[in-house]
Order: sequence, then structure tokens, then C-alpha cells
Amino acid sequence: MYWSKSFIHTLKEASEEAESTSHRLMLRAGMIKMLISGVYSYLPLGLKVLDNINKIIRQEMNALGSQELLMPSIQPIELWQMTKRDELLGEVMIRFQDRRGRKLCLGPTHEEVVTDLASRYIQSYRDLPFVLYQIQTKFRDELRPRFGLVRACEFIMKDAYSFDKDTEGLDEIYDKMYKAYENIFKRCGLDFVSIKADPGVIGGDVSHEFLVPAENGEDVVYKCNICGNYLSGNDAEIDVCPHCKKDLTKINALEVGHIFKLGTKYSDVFGLRYLDESGKERPVIMGCYGIGISRLIPAIIEQNNDADGIIWPKEVAPYDILVLPVNVTDKDIFSAAKKVYEILEKKKMKVILDDRDERAGIKFKDADLLGIPLRITIGEKFLKEKKVEIKSRKSKEVKLFNLDKIEEAVKGL
Amino acid sequence: MYWSKSFIHTLKEASEEAESTSHRLMLRAGMIKMLISGVYSYLPLGLKVLDNINKIIRQEMNALGSQELLMPSIQPIELWQMTKRDELLGEVMIRFQDRRGRKLCLGPTHEEVVTDLASRYIQSYRDLPFVLYQIQTKFRDELRPRFGLVRACEFIMKDAYSFDKDTEGLDEIYDKMYKAYENIFKRCGLDFVSIKADPGVIGGDVSHEFLVPAENGEDVVYKCNICGNYLSGNDAEIDVCPHCKKDLTKINALEVGHIFKLGTKYSDVFGLRYLDESGKERPVIMGCYGIGISRLIPAIIEQNNDADGIIWPKEVAPYDILVLPVNVTDKDIFSAAKKVYEILEKKKMKVILDDRDERAGIKFKDADLLGIPLRITIGEKFLKEKKVEIKSRKSKEVKLFNLDKIEEAVKGL
Repeated sequence: MYWSKSFIHTLKEASEEAESTSHRLMLRAGMIKMLISGVYSYLPLGLKVLDNINKIIRQEMNALGSQELLMPSIQPIELWQMTKRDELLGEVMIRFQDRRGRKLCLGPTHEEVVTDLASRYIQSYRDLPFVLYQIQTKFRDELRPRFGLVRACEFIMKDAYSFDKDTEGLDEIYDKMYKAYENIFKRCGLDFVSIKADPGVIGGDVSHEFLVPAENGEDVVYKCNICGNYLSGNDAEIDVCPHCKKDLTKINALEVGHIFKLGTKYSDVFGLRYLDESGKERPVIMGCYGIGISRLIPAIIEQNNDADGIIWPKEVAPYDILVLPVNVTDKDIFSAAKKVYEILEKKKMKVILDDRDERAGIKFKDADLLGIPLRITIGEKFLKEKKVEIKSRKSKEVKLFNLDKIEEAVKGL
Repeated sequence: MYWSKSFIHTLKEASEEAESTSHRLMLRAGMIKMLISGVYSYLPLGLKVLDNINKIIRQEMNALGSQELLMPSIQPIELWQMTKRDELLGEVMIRFQDRRGRKLCLGPTHEEVVTDLASRYIQSYRDLPFVLYQIQTKFRDELRPRFGLVRACEFIMKDAYSFDKDTEGLDEIYDKMYKAYENIFKRCGLDFVSIKADPGVIGGDVSHEFLVPAENGEDVVYKCNICGNYLSGNDAEIDVCPHCKKDLTKINALEVGHIFKLGTKYSDVFGLRYLDESGKERPVIMGCYGIGISRLIPAIIEQNNDADGIIWPKEVAPYDILVLPVNVTDKDIFSAAKKVYEILEKKKMKVILDDRDERAGIKFKDADLLGIPLRITIGEKFLKEKKVEIKSRKSKEVKLFNLDKIEEAVKGL
């Protein structure tokens, strides 16, 4: 992509609406644009990051045999009345009535729909176990949307649902999911903690939350400064670390994932049963597994930035390499830059060429703001010694290479 | 994918709700499941087809330099009042008020949002031209949803928007889009016609519709039996073919795409202007380009089926190859089938192995229903002569191969 042809518009200052580091950086880098409070457009740069996260999630979900489907946003209220979650969710659920008088809502989650769906197909033990998941837009009537994508009215989630014959099967898939979640958050470049949690409105006996320590977090975890152990709010009522007997520090944390052993809560309501090997009817044992995908983006930025801008972890970066000719009106510099761009594009790397006729200072500042992992600068050193400069956004390490060695140089970094 | 582990549940008969061939076949093949009238879940098999279509569309859109973004479903009514389309869309638009009293709707289209968005970033001729597109869920309060995904309340569209300095620029991108649309529909295996159309509620001077002749179409095109020319409803008031002077036949057709030269209709309302080379302020010239993605699936099936089931065109097929061991309890047959499956999987082909312990007759019927382009059968001929049978779903042609020649055999077909 040539920057001049892209829809990347950086801002020197974020508008006043920005309430946290990640929110400010996303606005300044031109990743998102607010339509109304709590409702955002993902601009091309923001969507690339979202797509990278989705790719990681799909790989990890598919690796454990989950199958992707796509359920609707529009849901009938009747399903929610059956589980009595209609009242529980209350005004948070967006409701409307259509022209035919049907009472509908926009799904904030899909336990009811997926259990009803499974009950139409599952008959015997031979149909079990299986896991379904979707990546989908959810809706909540948030009274106080905050921090950009962190607490929004329209947001993107991955929700998975497991269906098993017995609790042993549930335990097995729950552990696999737990590990898949660890992989996902690691690959996103996140420092995270998992904590036994209260199942709350979703229900069931056992649940674990995945939390990312971040300034814009609305949850709190406690950390022992000695052993590094994390404790949840409830555990921390004991007020010292159970291992070290030392005081705990208060840390804001953002919930990015939550997994639940649901048991038969939903299958009982929707009659989701199967015939076992002996012909006896039994309830299907369920689990559900959520990731707040859109809020992962601010979570990643909160943990990966410096005073100059974003520092994208490799797998989620919108581009791998930014090629920066310091002066596009210098023919030698610009044609060298184009050559570097073409070599790397051919190698299937995601490259952006800053071909804008702007001052070098502006281009360097924008490069730091966008946070692409590698920057290749073509400038004075190229004119004098035919060398190009490769800089790591993270380590700030700089190396010089001959133009014809560029491919190996990039691979080495 | 092993069929026994998949969420593919075929039905002998579609429920009574099915009103057309494609709708019946999609239900029978387990591609979709109705939640309420006009609202469907895409089951894993249906989602695979949707993803394949999306991939084709993204490739063709990116090839002409369009950039993908994702705009929100929730939109403020104010934007629609500005263009007076609030009244024009009337009850078709789903509306609600949130807890903070904001009057909102679920976007049936995004001209207002995208023009408002562009007006926040575009300043000079150097920012032009560009094209933005999204693949997104849209909502309509349909009084009479019909034919499954054909006329639904919740559906998926690709909508693109072009922004140019002048009408010459618009004409150029309009022609490119027209060609991209031809590529997309051809790659989807569709026989289609394009016709100059009435811009209607979207507006502008020039528009073209892309129509697919199909029994469940709600539009009508006229076809000359001599020259094969198509005429739109308006043109056909002349009642004979203008070339052949012969009578025309009435054909149902389904609208799958519509492109519009909008001109300044939206940019005037939202103040989307730019400074030209001489510093003079001018309005941005816009175009918009829609494809009804979810209804492409029934359109493809309407044109690609026989009495036994679906016949997927290559690029949109959920799997490339179905491997069918006639008897999974026969060790030799089943291990040969697994070997074939593994060889093809390694070659990055999308393969499904029908490992179900079902009668061969049921498996053959299901294979025809699902419509995977190639079926590889391992049965009697394998036991006697070590030969496997490859059958084309479309041509019904059958060939025999040795197991160790399977890779070349598949490539040849």
C-alpha cells in the first residue's frame, strides 16, 4: 500500500473525547472514528488489526476442533423469557417491536439461540461432543460508554459453546479452551492473568476470567509484590498474599475473556437431551467461552506503547514494515524506496510505503505513532554509501544494510 | 474434516417453510437454520460458502485499490433526516431509542455514515480519489420475508463508496467497478445480466442493476429468444426485441448487485468538499456499489442444482472433495479412505471424509445433496483391483485410479 493512496489520516492531537492512552492513540493513528458516543467505525488501519486478531482466534479455535457458524443479531424475546434472563439483563438489552408485532432484541450474547439451535439437531450420543463458535457483533445499551472500544454499545465478540455427554467431557474441553485462551492472548502480545471468577448472569458453577492489567481497566486485581501472584477482588478480602504474607497492590485490569462451565442450565430449559449408549435420555452438558475482541485492541495498545505512539506486537501489526524515503522528490531515494517496497511485497510481507511529499520529521513522527514493527529508511546514507537503515520500533535498534541484502536483513530481525 | 465430528446434519425433507428450490436445498443440506421468519443462522457448511464469496469479493475490490473498513450498524436518525431519507425509508428502517434518549436506527445502508465520515478527513485534491468498502450485516423490517436468505430482515451486504474530484474520475471507477462485478458473478458460477436501472431511493443519475435469472426472483427481465438480449421492465414496454423485432419471454430475476453514480447528492448535504489545485472549493463526486452477499448463495444454488441436490461451482464450494468409504467397518476400505484424505489435506485441498457408519446409499444421497465438486469413492473396486473412483458432481463423469495416483488424478479434474 502506498500511503498517499491509503485512507490513513493521522492527527497531531486526539479530540477531547479521548479518555485513555489507547483511545487517544487509536484516534491519532486514524484507526477508529466515533459516529456517536459508544459507536465507532473501524477505519482501514483499525480493521487490519481486528482481522489479525480474528485470524489468531480462528486458528486456535479450529485447532481444538471447534466449528465456526454465524447466528443472527435479531432474537425473539421469548427465548430470553424462557431462561428468565429477560429481566436479568433489563435495560442493557436493546429491544424493539417489528411491523408484524414481534417482540425482538439485539443479542448481547447467544446462549439461548445456540441451545435452541442444537436441540433441533442433537439426538444421540453419536452427535456429541462438539464445539460451535462465532465472531459477531453484539449490542448493549450502555449508559456510560467509555474509553473508545473498551465499553461500547456495539462491539465484536468471539463466543464459543461446547456440548458434551458428561462432566468429564466438559472438563476436558474447558481445559483445552483455557489453554487456547492462553495461546491467543500471548500471540496478541498481552501480559494477562486468569482468575477464578463469579459466573454472574451467564450462570453455571465454575468460571475463569482473563484479565489484562491496564490503566483503563474497570476490574481490579491484586498483585503480591514479592511472588507476583494475582488475586481477584473476592480472594483479596484476606488482604495479604497467602504465600508471602505480604501486602497486595491495587491494579486496574480489563476483562478480555471469560469461560464458564454451564452444566445443564440452558439444556434443561430448551430440552437439549440425547440418548446415551443404553438408550437412556440425558441432558447435554454445556460450556461457554467468550472473548471481547474489539476491546483486545485497546488492551494491546495499553500494554504496548511509549511516548511516541503504538508499538505493535508482530502478529497483530497492521503492516510488518514501513518503508520511509526521507524525500520523495529525490529520484534516487524514491526509486530505491520503491525497489525495497517491491522486493518485500513479492515476499508476501505486508508493507506500506510512505510516499507522501511531507517533511522527514512529520514522516518519522507518524511512523512512531503507527507503530509498525520495522521501519526502513532511505535517506542521506543511501545517497552517500548506498545503505538503507532498518529500525525496530520496539527495541529502537538500528542497523545499516546494502539495498541488495534487504531481504535477509528483514528476515533476521 | 471428519463428517462424524462435523455439525452437518442433512434432512430427507425440508420443513414446510421452504418456498423455492434453493431454500429447500439449503435447509436439507444443513446450511442454514431459521430462528424466526426472515432471520437465519448460518450453520458451518453455509458459513463456508459465505466466506468463499467474501474472499472473491475482497480480492476483486482490493484489486482496484478499494480499502476495507467497518462501519457501525447503529446510526443516529439525525443523519437520515439530513438527507430526508428518514421519511423515504419509513417503516422499513428498524428504529429504537436508547436509555439516554438518543433516537437510533439499524442501518439498512451507509451513504449517510460514510459521507459524514469522509467529510471529517478530506481537505484537498491530494486526498482524492479513493474507494472504501465494507462487508457488513444490514437490517430491514421486512413485512413479508421470503425464500430464506433472498428477502430477509437481517442480511449481509458489500457496500462500496467512491470519492472523486470530478465526473471523469467517477466514470473511470464506475467502469472498473462494473468489470469487477462481472468478475465476481462469473467466479461465483452465475449466469447474470446487467441492465440500466432506476436509481430509486439511493439517488443519482445513472445506475446499473445486476440480475440473476432465477425462479425465486422478484424482478422481471425480458429475453429475446433469437439474439439472447435482455431488456429491463421499462425497456420492454416496446414489447418486441429492438434488434430482432421478435417477441420477448418473461423471466423472473433476482437482483444481486446495483451500482450508482451518485454525483453530489450526499456530498452537498454533508459538506464533503475539497480544495482543488487552484485553491477553489469543490464538491466531492461520489458513487456507490452494492452486492447482496447473503442472497448470492440462493442465487448460485438456483442456477446450479439438479434433482439430487446442489452442484457447487468450484470457487464457492464448501469443500473441494468428499471422500466416501462405502463401509467404514471394513478396515481396508476405511484405512485407504483415510490415506486419500490425508494426501489431499496435505496438498491444502479442502476435504471432508464421510466416516459415518451409515449405509452406502444414504452416503451417496447425502454426497449428491451437498454438491461437493468431486467425490472419491473407496469400495468394492478398491478391494478387488486397488482402484478408487473419482466422480464429478457436475458432469457425472467417473474415472478409476490407483490409490498412489490420486493426487495427479484430482489435479487433472
